Amino acid sequence: MNFADRLDAALERVRTPALVGVDPHLELLPAPFAAARDARAPRVERAAAVEAFARELIDLVAGRVAVVKPQSAFFEVLGADGVAAWERLVAYAHACGLLVIGDVKRSDIASTAAAYATAFLEGLPGAERSALCDAITLNPYLGSDSLLPFLDACERSDAGLFVLVRTSNEGSGEIQNHGQPPLCERVADSVAALGARLVGRSGFSSLGAVVGATQREELARLRARMPRAILLLPGYGAQGATARDVRAAFPDRTRPWRGALVNSSRGVAFAWREKRNANRDWKDAASAALDEMIGELGAALTASD
Amino acid sequence: MNFADRLDAALERVRTPALVGVDPHLELLPAPFAAARDARAPRVERAAAVEAFARELIDLVAGRVAVVKPQSAFFEVLGADGVAAWERLVAYAHACGLLVIGDVKRSDIASTAAAYATAFLEGLPGAERSALCDAITLNPYLGSDSLLPFLDACERSDAGLFVLVRTSNEGSGEIQNHGQPPLCERVADSVAALGARLVGRSGFSSLGAVVGATQREELARLRARMPRAILLLPGYGAQGATARDVRAAFPDRTRPWRGALVNSSRGVAFAWREKRNANRDWKDAASAALDEMIGELGAALTASD
Repeated sequence: MNFADRLDAALERVRTPALVGVDPHLELLPAPFAAARDARAPRVERAAAVEAFARELIDLVAGRVAVVKPQSAFFEVLGADGVAAWERLVAYAHACGLLVIGDVKRSDIASTAAAYATAFLEGLPGAERSALCDAITLNPYLGSDSLLPFLDACERSDAGLFVLVRTSNEGSGEIQNHGQPPLCERVADSVAALGARLVGRSGFSSLGAVVGATQREELARLRARMPRAILLLPGYGAQGATARDVRAAFPDRTRPWRGALVNSSRGVAFAWREKRNANRDWKDAASAALDEMIGELGAALTASD
Repeated sequence: MNFADRLDAALERVRTPALVGVDPHLELLPAPFAAARDARAPRVERAAAVEAFARELIDLVAGRVAVVKPQSAFFEVLGADGVAAWERLVAYAHACGLLVIGDVKRSDIASTAAAYATAFLEGLPGAERSALCDAITLNPYLGSDSLLPFLDACERSDAGLFVLVRTSNEGSGEIQNHGQPPLCERVADSVAALGARLVGRSGFSSLGAVVGATQREELARLRARMPRAILLLPGYGAQGATARDVRAAFPDRTRPWRGALVNSSRGVAFAWREKRNANRDWKDAASAALDEMIGELGAALTASD
């Protein structure tokens, strides 16, 4: 089944657009996983500690959200051992009934892009498929021709893509708002045009877009240019965006979990580090933070004002 | 020693700006490495075949060029086994006296970018250092703040960076020439400004730039905006650029190996697939193609017209 349709059905079950980022910053992991940052521990043990943390986080969120988004960098930092942990983790998330968006932000010329599409979305012939992602994030700087091999792979294997349009970091406007119209609007138009071939029965396309939840003013404008794209909105919580900031992303006020995903990474996984959670177990703190996020989104997205 | 200075010294020894890309497309590997594309072979054996090919290519070019540029995608396609092969290969290239530019084209917000910088350039405390790259390629779409953690890492560990400014693919102008001035010129100005802190005794900066050798008209303009950047020029050979196309990249006509690297990947490694090389051993064909490239560059870059 088309990725956008699978995602839409999964969101309908959980009735929240909350998405949990799995970003195991070594320095931020709770004490039981301190082996991850132990310079004297063998790398394979450090990767195992990262994996153990990520699995517990997944156990915590499974059934409550539809999707998790592991961040590749925090696995790659442990080299081949980290990538092996990534593969096991993706398979584990699938076994827990979750969809997986691999946050890899890859980009390259077409012949190389095809290899990345195989690596993350299609798999080599004969390869184990459980460790493949349902979707990945992509960087558009090389232009549409660099995205086409990924679109082809999505068509063949019912996978999805989220192209960076307007990112959540403070300096993102430097490049993404360059020119007139601003570059990000041009990229949004490309996403809308290229995504037409991947529109499913749900009316959404498997070619989605990343728009920072911190870009409140631009969100409505970008949503209007990409009416069928599923928007992935990072920046909630730790980066400062609130539930009200993301309202413009949702096309259907009566079903405010369709058409967009609101990501929180550090705000959930590392809630235990916040002052208000001092002395609280990391899992209790994460669970409460997720409840809070789901509640805030539900309230803000259905409010009539 | 500062990366730009190490590179400059290495180029002075070989007296050619030729750079060999190590892009082991599974489908293009010569017959002795066919296990790499055998769907029934265990993945670890497929990765071993990729590694064996890449090692033989490195043996072939060591001493003749200063730098190799392995392409991460063709290792990642074999998952954790491929990444383990990548690590061994980078260490092997170092053991052969080569500098290694990891073609990874990473990009992310600062907190994540720092993890990528650790993964490829600095290494975790206590980790094996031989598998780290001397430099990597980066994608600038997220803006300068996303590049800063990489610059910090370079300062601490004498590594280098090549930021994508104008890529060699046909559709690259869609984004990179957007606006007035064209976006790529703005990125070039950022590279020049950010790179000031990494200028070495050679006069070159460890913050370099990727400019497609296929962009002949823009090359001179971009070089003028980045006078201290080492330019990495892909697109020679298989993508159509010639030795004459890259002349504008070299600031010193009497030492036409300083300040720029001309990359050929498929044109060397897969020369055996060209009609003129039918029935020729892949290594003979690659070796001859590299000789030819070095000769052409030498002639075109010293010509007085």
